[in-house]
Amino acid sequence: MRRKEFSVSEQAEIESFLAEMTYGFLATAGEDGWPHIKALNFVYLDDAVYFHGSLAGEKMKDLKTDNRATFSVAKEYSMIPSYLLDPKLACPATVFFKSVTVKGRAHVVEDLQEKARVFTAFMKKLQPEGGYEPIDPADPEYAASLRSVALVKIKVEDLSAKFKFGQNLKQETFGLVMAGLENRGETLDKETIALMEKFCPHHKKA
Amino acid sequence: MRRKEFSVSEQAEIESFLAEMTYGFLATAGEDGWPHIKALNFVYLDDAVYFHGSLAGEKMKDLKTDNRATFSVAKEYSMIPSYLLDPKLACPATVFFKSVTVKGRAHVVEDLQEKARVFTAFMKKLQPEGGYEPIDPADPEYAASLRSVALVKIKVEDLSAKFKFGQNLKQETFGLVMAGLENRGETLDKETIALMEKFCPHHKKA
Repeated sequence: MRRKEFSVSEQAEIESFLAEMTYGFLATAGEDGWPHIKALNFVYLDDAVYFHGSLAGEKMKDLKTDNRATFSVAKEYSMIPSYLLDPKLACPATVFFKSVTVKGRAHVVEDLQEKARVFTAFMKKLQPEGGYEPIDPADPEYAASLRSVALVKIKVEDLSAKFKFGQNLKQETFGLVMAGLENRGETLDKETIALMEKFCPHHKKA
Repeated sequence: MRRKEFSVSEQAEIESFLAEMTYGFLATAGEDGWPHIKALNFVYLDDAVYFHGSLAGEKMKDLKTDNRATFSVAKEYSMIPSYLLDPKLACPATVFFKSVTVKGRAHVVEDLQEKARVFTAFMKKLQPEGGYEPIDPADPEYAASLRSVALVKIKVEDLSAKFKFGQNLKQETFGLVMAGLENRGETLDKETIALMEKFCPHHKKA
């Protein structure tokens, strides 16, 4: 987070990105002192990140000993080739991206009503076309499943978002990058150009 | 890694996945006791993961205090809707994926020849079309850049790969999932079907 020019604070932008991204990476402190990391599907709901898993898993064991968790989501946009910025050196090659990192203490959710509400949000996110009966703890089949799966809530204590779309570039260089991406014209380049237009101060001034 | 049926040990499969994926997530132990995590571009070369960054960054500070690092890469394939497996309950909804996690101690690479070799591998991976002069420490411009950027090497001490493509499903259920994906027919579904065929024991037996 040293590069302040990439920081994003608009909550709507952050929430929209977290709704679009289906998985992120959870870091926990292992009992053996090693940092552990695991890719997980998640939902972001009411200022918390939720994920689920087996009660017997490594991450659950870690969090029982030390419940400090960091969770990060990132999406890569266009690779920016060095030759758009320098005809000789490879060094300016970079990549544009969005990333959000959340810190908080993890707690196991026991309440079946809350579990049903969160799993419903999971299903709406990952299976928006439906095709299942509403998740209801009053249904014995659902109640058994809800009890057997672990749901973990990380209440957000700190959130930082970094969207890098050329905000650090001088206006002329910024224009060269945009022209280069327009010329390449891949799907991701078109999305990247739209985000450069949205987030870059030079373009806003124009 | 509790689910042994998803474990992959073929080195060629693992290397091919690590060559395809442009970024992963690094977990380090913060001095404050919190686990830290950061998305990074990387190359996997000679049984090591390399990433670069500024010497002043948080991850460099962490690694100076405790050089134990865990690095993970994951790619999501098809979402498997619950209704392919159960007409009523949402619970069977899942997702197929590949993930590789590496543990090792991180060291800053100081040798300019090794730095040039690794950055050349970065460029070949991320800018395969070329468009720059060869990275050569004998060139004063490159030498200055090579000195100012930090390159970190994580020598692999432990690597685990998990490719989940329905290996845990009974043959009949496996067939239902495959038929459902064929029917949906998105690009990712086609790739997923090919990987189900490749990695699933039922299909191999057929």
